[in-house]
Amino acid sequence: MRNILLKIEYDGTNYQGWQTQRKRGKTRFVTIQETIEKVLSQVLQENVNLISSGRTDSGVHAKEQVANFNTYSEIPLKKIKIALNSLLPEDIRIKAICLAGKDFHARYCAKSKTYRYAIINREYNSVFDRSWVVQISRKLDIKAMQEEAKTLIGRHDFKSFQASDKIHRNSIRTIKKLLVRKRNNYILIDVEADGFLYNMVRNIVGTLLEVGKGKFEKGAVKRILKSKDRSQAGPTAPAKGLCLLKVNY
Amino acid sequence: MRNILLKIEYDGTNYQGWQTQRKRGKTRFVTIQETIEKVLSQVLQENVNLISSGRTDSGVHAKEQVANFNTYSEIPLKKIKIALNSLLPEDIRIKAICLAGKDFHARYCAKSKTYRYAIINREYNSVFDRSWVVQISRKLDIKAMQEEAKTLIGRHDFKSFQASDKIHRNSIRTIKKLLVRKRNNYILIDVEADGFLYNMVRNIVGTLLEVGKGKFEKGAVKRILKSKDRSQAGPTAPAKGLCLLKVNY
Repeated sequence: MRNILLKIEYDGTNYQGWQTQRKRGKTRFVTIQETIEKVLSQVLQENVNLISSGRTDSGVHAKEQVANFNTYSEIPLKKIKIALNSLLPEDIRIKAICLAGKDFHARYCAKSKTYRYAIINREYNSVFDRSWVVQISRKLDIKAMQEEAKTLIGRHDFKSFQASDKIHRNSIRTIKKLLVRKRNNYILIDVEADGFLYNMVRNIVGTLLEVGKGKFEKGAVKRILKSKDRSQAGPTAPAKGLCLLKVNY
Repeated sequence: MRNILLKIEYDGTNYQGWQTQRKRGKTRFVTIQETIEKVLSQVLQENVNLISSGRTDSGVHAKEQVANFNTYSEIPLKKIKIALNSLLPEDIRIKAICLAGKDFHARYCAKSKTYRYAIINREYNSVFDRSWVVQISRKLDIKAMQEEAKTLIGRHDFKSFQASDKIHRNSIRTIKKLLVRKRNNYILIDVEADGFLYNMVRNIVGTLLEVGKGKFEKGAVKRILKSKDRSQAGPTAPAKGLCLLKVNY
């Protein structure tokens, strides 16, 4: 039995997120997980259960998602990779495949994850980047966003930034890095944390965007963080701007 | 009467090229030109005839196509731009709009044009750039491609590189710049010329790719150029890797 690790890139536009939905009586949408599992089972001729570092929401992308699975198949890794990339739709690519230690678990072993949120700050979106960039016309105050973002770095209770309909019992997380950068017309917000609450990045970004638009006063993010009240923070930024950049082990 | 200039960006994936097709008895495909003309007519409430710097083929993209049109409408330019971008599909964007001199003609006034051809030289394509990048697994010899490309710079008869089914009477053109560059896994080929024969860039790229794969000997491109024989050159590279980068006036 081998434990195999995959590094996966995907454009989430046409998927209902990573995780296979098994809700009874509801329409079943196509997910990244089931798309890959189906092709893997076809290649390996056995049922495969993929474990990822964590789900990504509907419409969210990944530059490098990590997943692992166990298999009795003895097909060489290089061949599996080629077969997968030839059978998968072109919005999902296997970047790398390797043998993992038998105890490796893509979710439990992850030490931290880095997400990137991409914004284009001009009157029109780029036709080439439109699937992963959110366009905002109003000129954003980058300096204010950078200043307020600093408040969130470190170990905090991020209750104000978690989805109000999906509450984690423990909303304390550690943000190791939170970087707001400008590259030409693009604004990139990178967030690395030991774990993320549901919608946490999108709620942080939505709040920083309000800062950038001048709708929140100086010190607002600190106030919101302390309030532990979701209704104090900004709206949830759209899914399509979000991308899982890297999983750190 | 105003003569108005547009700078246009488009993802050509879903279009049958720039120019409106008016072939009788054949299926009429959607083109970029007719898509913009339709929206312009709607905004300006008059028929509009768009003149571009030149047609681009089916599947070819543009970072900056230039087109002009005459109108009696007195709607302010800024308003026209906003209206166009709100009505056009998201794979066509108006980057800029300005008033042109009354004699300006997007095709006749163009001094040169620059095209870019984009290749990703690794085992799998990028899911995010897949609409405008051609993926090639076999490692290409960039140095040989750069060396052979030099031969094409200058004023030459490019008969060997024009589509065999669409012959121009005069196949002499001047290539001002031909640059083969590597950026991480990407290979970008930029070609600037005073004019292009039908399929000229794609045939040059197809030939340079054969060089990169080691299928052509050293000096082959010079030999092919001199032969004035299309059958000596490499195949036509796929349309989706080609992008009109800039029109120079």
